[in-house]
Amino acid sequence: MARIRTTEVKEHIGERVELQGWLHTMRRLGGVNFMVLRDGWGTVQAVTESEADLAPITGEDLHPETLITLTGIVTASVQAPGGIELQQLQVTVLNPVREALPVLISKREIKAQLPVLLDHAVVTNRHPGRRALFRLSAGVMAAYRAYLNREGFTEIQTPKVVASATESGANVFAIDYFGRPAYLAQSPQFYKQIMVGVFERVFEVGPVFRAEPHATARHLSEYVSLDVEFGFIENHFTIMALLRDLLAHIFTTLESQHSAELTLVGASLPIVPATIPHLHFAEAKELVYQLHGVDERNEPDLSPQEERWLGAWAQQEHGSDFLFVTGYPMSKRPFYTHPDPARPAYSNSFDLLFRGMELVTGGQRLHRYEDYLAALAARKLSPDSFVGYLDTFRYGMPPHGGFAIGLERLLMQLTGAANLRETTLFPRDLSRLTP
Amino acid sequence: MARIRTTEVKEHIGERVELQGWLHTMRRLGGVNFMVLRDGWGTVQAVTESEADLAPITGEDLHPETLITLTGIVTASVQAPGGIELQQLQVTVLNPVREALPVLISKREIKAQLPVLLDHAVVTNRHPGRRALFRLSAGVMAAYRAYLNREGFTEIQTPKVVASATESGANVFAIDYFGRPAYLAQSPQFYKQIMVGVFERVFEVGPVFRAEPHATARHLSEYVSLDVEFGFIENHFTIMALLRDLLAHIFTTLESQHSAELTLVGASLPIVPATIPHLHFAEAKELVYQLHGVDERNEPDLSPQEERWLGAWAQQEHGSDFLFVTGYPMSKRPFYTHPDPARPAYSNSFDLLFRGMELVTGGQRLHRYEDYLAALAARKLSPDSFVGYLDTFRYGMPPHGGFAIGLERLLMQLTGAANLRETTLFPRDLSRLTP
Repeated sequence: MARIRTTEVKEHIGERVELQGWLHTMRRLGGVNFMVLRDGWGTVQAVTESEADLAPITGEDLHPETLITLTGIVTASVQAPGGIELQQLQVTVLNPVREALPVLISKREIKAQLPVLLDHAVVTNRHPGRRALFRLSAGVMAAYRAYLNREGFTEIQTPKVVASATESGANVFAIDYFGRPAYLAQSPQFYKQIMVGVFERVFEVGPVFRAEPHATARHLSEYVSLDVEFGFIENHFTIMALLRDLLAHIFTTLESQHSAELTLVGASLPIVPATIPHLHFAEAKELVYQLHGVDERNEPDLSPQEERWLGAWAQQEHGSDFLFVTGYPMSKRPFYTHPDPARPAYSNSFDLLFRGMELVTGGQRLHRYEDYLAALAARKLSPDSFVGYLDTFRYGMPPHGGFAIGLERLLMQLTGAANLRETTLFPRDLSRLTP
Repeated sequence: MARIRTTEVKEHIGERVELQGWLHTMRRLGGVNFMVLRDGWGTVQAVTESEADLAPITGEDLHPETLITLTGIVTASVQAPGGIELQQLQVTVLNPVREALPVLISKREIKAQLPVLLDHAVVTNRHPGRRALFRLSAGVMAAYRAYLNREGFTEIQTPKVVASATESGANVFAIDYFGRPAYLAQSPQFYKQIMVGVFERVFEVGPVFRAEPHATARHLSEYVSLDVEFGFIENHFTIMALLRDLLAHIFTTLESQHSAELTLVGASLPIVPATIPHLHFAEAKELVYQLHGVDERNEPDLSPQEERWLGAWAQQEHGSDFLFVTGYPMSKRPFYTHPDPARPAYSNSFDLLFRGMELVTGGQRLHRYEDYLAALAARKLSPDSFVGYLDTFRYGMPPHGGFAIGLERLLMQLTGAANLRETTLFPRDLSRLTP
């Protein structure tokens, strides 16, 4: 008999089918025995009153996660999860598990503190709720690529080992590169700009590395960045419009293709407004001061608390889960940032807050060679460190810009996770390097 | 007027259109002036007999790669490339280039030695032939993902910073991870196996890092690995069958969606036979000895020369660009390799040669916990270094295996490039860390 998947069982009512997978649970309730088999796609319940049917498992005292082959007759049952169960069972053991799991993964929620969950990620990632989360993650990547391909973008892969730090010398991991110093890329920023000179519109999905010296719930030292960069823009508002449409496409796709996973993780999908509300940085600071009496108007960045307040304001005033804050001060943005022509102390940049947390950073970049030389000189940086990158601008670049979405932050805010570490398979932070 | 793309011009014959892009070439032939504009997708020729039309460029002695806006009437012309050209021109300069390019990119081929090509990759990657190559690269990734998604695989992203070397201690880049030693992942091998325990079928596109201490034409120290791993296999032949179908899908997709790029780079698409011929490692060694009189039958690996000979044999005997060599000696394969049950000195592994070069390595892995403990003990490796990984097998794994395709090698063999460095945007090797 050919194996079928758990997700195909419902098409075989009345037939005997063969499944293979992990023994997810076994419950023995006074003469009636329930087992649940899990394969790569879902779970199916099987029922028997016969102890003999279960002997291959019970006879050797095997534990959940034992690999089994299970055949049975597919039977409609209103009590069973999904309305279907297997009866008249035959069980064969493919690979036994002889020890109890370190963390139970058969309950609706995993009852474990975060460090325990992560220490045992190898096992806890098998939990159906965790699986749903990571399927959503794959769904976000797929929808992101589909939208950008449709809009004429080309996918690129750029080096992660680089000769100099991208943004600044801080928070960078050093490598011994054949006896020479090198660094892990903090972002593909320079390369995606270079590639605008090649393809005009590019995107990349890849790891980025930040040697964050502090342990917060919203930082990782390695995460997945969804990068976009494109040319022939008017200013940062061109970029914000594309980002808005991209996010709308991602969430619409999740809704239509991943509703089961969204339900399983308890995610509430945001509505992306036709126009996402935006505040200038100076207005945002003023608003926080007016609403909350906290005067940080001279600070050149927003604190996490300010982001939360602004997110709440966008929700209350505009019914929006999203808020653009534009025009961050030039002093806090990297040297390639394009200033606001009307107010040069502010930049043509933006952050997008999603439910009160920075999800995306982006903006217009400088595109004239002379402007780069001036910007580097103003920051006392040597053009020698940026030779290849600067050639991009020396040899012709259009007005351009882009953004980077943090994949894990998107999942965190979508699912309401309390910690960014929950949203990636095997997180890396100040103290965690395994599994 | 709204800007259109070069690829849309042919739909506007008789109309005035506006293009924006790079001045690709300008030729002035005794009263008739030809310019070619390049945007992110293609090129369009424009013609004028009027010197005044070109004054914005010629008046300031601007160079190719100057950014321009060009409007003109779309006119059919049998002599023009693509049968279309613009006439009655208006040219505006968006961003001038005032220096000659370090390498000419307007000819059909770039006339430059490899180091010069790579030193100036920022510019040379703008060459239409180079662009076509990298579009093919994106096309391979897209087709690979499409096939695997259809077959029930889930895309994953696994950490690139790891606590211990994957395969062995050799050829690994060391990192200073907050004062602790860590390494760049040589492959996602451990993580993709762990994830078979979660999703059963997984794939990953990501960078891998090899501190290759030698400079050959077929090695890079950072490259893109297309990884696949899945469970419930019978043996390595299950894996080889899926790999065959995946490659057939990739090449069929390139043929239907990227014919222009294939022509531009002079690629010849292989035919993937319904069954790719295969030789056991011992047979392959014997064959080389019989055909070429070179006796390396006691060597546990194939040399590049042997791979070329075997590739030529597969072409001659089977008319196939592909050849599987199966059953590599266990002594040369990593500890997680599954032995051939009938001949335990050989493994259930394979390499796939494409036109005489190793393109893919794969095989069945061990799946029983006891087998891992025994394999580590036999190699005098401590289980303590592999705790999380080993838990995968302790808590239930099906028979499984997978493979890794080198993206750059696929492009190299597809296009007949002489050096792997030509097939990636910004290569990294023993001596090259920029651009």
